[in-house]
Amino acid sequence: MALPKKPVTGMKDILPGEMEIRDYVQKAVREVYGRFGFTEIETPAVEHIENLTSNQGGENEKLIFRILKRGEKLNLEAAKDPSDLTDSGLRYDLTLPLSRYYAAHMNELPSPFKALQMGNVFRADRPQKGRFRQFMQCDIDILGDDSNLSEIELISATTTLLTTIGFERFTVKISDRRILKAMASYSGFPEEEYDRVFIILDKMDKIGIPGVREELLKAGYDEEKVDKYLRLFEGEKKNTEAIEELKGILKDHLPEGTAKSLMSIINCVDSSKTGDFSISFDPTLVRGMSYYTGTIFEITIDEFGSSIAGGGRYDGMVERFTGNKVPACGFSIGFERIITILLDRGFRVPGHENKTAFLIDKKISGDRLTAIMKEAAEKRKEGNTVLCARMMKNKKFQKDNLEAAGYTDIEEFFYN
Amino acid sequence: MALPKKPVTGMKDILPGEMEIRDYVQKAVREVYGRFGFTEIETPAVEHIENLTSNQGGENEKLIFRILKRGEKLNLEAAKDPSDLTDSGLRYDLTLPLSRYYAAHMNELPSPFKALQMGNVFRADRPQKGRFRQFMQCDIDILGDDSNLSEIELISATTTLLTTIGFERFTVKISDRRILKAMASYSGFPEEEYDRVFIILDKMDKIGIPGVREELLKAGYDEEKVDKYLRLFEGEKKNTEAIEELKGILKDHLPEGTAKSLMSIINCVDSSKTGDFSISFDPTLVRGMSYYTGTIFEITIDEFGSSIAGGGRYDGMVERFTGNKVPACGFSIGFERIITILLDRGFRVPGHENKTAFLIDKKISGDRLTAIMKEAAEKRKEGNTVLCARMMKNKKFQKDNLEAAGYTDIEEFFYN
Repeated sequence: MALPKKPVTGMKDILPGEMEIRDYVQKAVREVYGRFGFTEIETPAVEHIENLTSNQGGENEKLIFRILKRGEKLNLEAAKDPSDLTDSGLRYDLTLPLSRYYAAHMNELPSPFKALQMGNVFRADRPQKGRFRQFMQCDIDILGDDSNLSEIELISATTTLLTTIGFERFTVKISDRRILKAMASYSGFPEEEYDRVFIILDKMDKIGIPGVREELLKAGYDEEKVDKYLRLFEGEKKNTEAIEELKGILKDHLPEGTAKSLMSIINCVDSSKTGDFSISFDPTLVRGMSYYTGTIFEITIDEFGSSIAGGGRYDGMVERFTGNKVPACGFSIGFERIITILLDRGFRVPGHENKTAFLIDKKISGDRLTAIMKEAAEKRKEGNTVLCARMMKNKKFQKDNLEAAGYTDIEEFFYN
Repeated sequence: MALPKKPVTGMKDILPGEMEIRDYVQKAVREVYGRFGFTEIETPAVEHIENLTSNQGGENEKLIFRILKRGEKLNLEAAKDPSDLTDSGLRYDLTLPLSRYYAAHMNELPSPFKALQMGNVFRADRPQKGRFRQFMQCDIDILGDDSNLSEIELISATTTLLTTIGFERFTVKISDRRILKAMASYSGFPEEEYDRVFIILDKMDKIGIPGVREELLKAGYDEEKVDKYLRLFEGEKKNTEAIEELKGILKDHLPEGTAKSLMSIINCVDSSKTGDFSISFDPTLVRGMSYYTGTIFEITIDEFGSSIAGGGRYDGMVERFTGNKVPACGFSIGFERIITILLDRGFRVPGHENKTAFLIDKKISGDRLTAIMKEAAEKRKEGNTVLCARMMKNKKFQKDNLEAAGYTDIEEFFYN
């Protein structure tokens, strides 16, 4: 019987056309982030199961691909539960492995440590259009710096990258988990209810204030608290003024310095920016992951409904490995979304065209073939692309394919 | 309790110094192979278990990391054997997934198809120095061309790549599985014994003709056959002359055209070469994988004991997926070995030095910080690397680290 040809459920083969664009973006990532002093690192795709299930991955922990133990460690008869069969799994993100990595190697790494990671992650999500069970993540993180220079550098680097690969008129939305919490505290919600409240607040851009009000009431919260809370989002002021106003209202609920730091990030990014984008305070910004402890940010673009990049400060994660608090802040671009947008735009990478193909008659061999290969070698030495291939029976089809792949200069070598 | 910091057994974290060299080699791979018209593709790290266990991976099939089934598919109580618990696993090489990929997408791919793959593969080998359970493979393959232009292009591309990244005085050893078989057939070994004979022959470079003779006799083969066989390896002639001589001796045991094709590859590669290397016929070359059907080759370098690249023709593999024979030939560089050699040499990538670092006093904020970030943005726009970081308490240590990482221009910004 023939072996299965399709990839495993929910994963995909990458064809040459898409791969060319992925390579182009990856190259831009290395160049741009490199100019900001980020150094690339890599962790294995396989992680300890204890780390993957340590309550730092939220919903992703339900989607782990577990790897079967091997040899003597695998005791099928004694196994009562799938967890008895496995001690490792495929990573579902790059943030948890980075924290482990930093904890393991901090004595060999510079301080602060500016890390770039590009790698595949794996989630056993229900297969659906545009969402795959293996996909590329691309993260930058700064570990060991508790100042807001981290946020400024992360946002400047990511906006420069997006500008470099052709994105414009995008928006950086920024807030702080501590402001989010202060607003909930000021309104009288109990701390253990914050996450539930924030999940509803997160729908603001879809259902508006009336929708959020309705859902909060339906969830059983006091009308008085809910209205006090929602009035905080009704201000007409923007950015620095909005933050100043909130600071005045929230008073002791807001930790000292939070508002000032946020304003400083917005001003510095906006004044030193080199691309066509805006940065604005958005008090409705939530960012799902519970590990965030301070600033949170994401980038949206009208062309694409959801965000194309997101991140924030997570000062508690390395501590789970070392026992010592290490300040950390990261920004992740939605690599697969960006590729999808570029494909939809019909984007062509620079250098796609003007390549040379030598089509060589099947009967040409010996000295004649050597002479042709020498010519190809010379052209390649000068930096040209020269594809050498035997002429196929269906030459028209072959040439059409080559032209579509950017081989606009096709030379044919006939026998005789 | 603290979470485990080390990577899982047998896998490794890649530190910035090594990563810089890996990126440099990967970039050279894309550039050089790109100039030869190879297009990059990617397959998932996860493969169907049927494919991974289809007897095409030799010993590697014993080293598969299997992935646990999920949800309803996982029936622990009914499972009698580990194979009941799993329907996928991590790929152990890139050749099998490429064959599946080509079978699935051949109508969307050019013919012939020149593929470049760089990706991690996984083998649950016994952990030992320098051998890891996750490692990078880097393969080029040509599918759909039955002429020896494939071999010529694969060898020219790989030798050009090695030259580009600083290797010289290496040797391309080449032979043909059909010559290997003809020599065994001529000497009177039965076909079902060939593989056993070849495993012993493969030790020739370590134990010499006397050692091989002893092992063949110990394995129970006739002294007469063994001596007839070993006389074939005693010729003093080289390359074309050696092949001509063997052709004369082996006569009908050798398929028509085999010798001529091999001589043509050697002559063409040698005459059109651009690097400092030699190519030579080596009748003792075996190459372990049983899927090879024709030409086989590898590259050795005195500096490093074993080979640094290997490949050959495998015309039967795609057929397992499609039912139709598709000619195929590939060459794989030993990516991890090459990185180890470069690290041992103390190799420094171009552009490692002359980078700029801005060390900024912790107290600097507001307009002053913005002005510094503007200056950094300007320098980066001109293509320079500028790392911005807060000055640490142990500034000497911080500066030493930065200098070691190539930041030879360090500017300090003090408060006041």
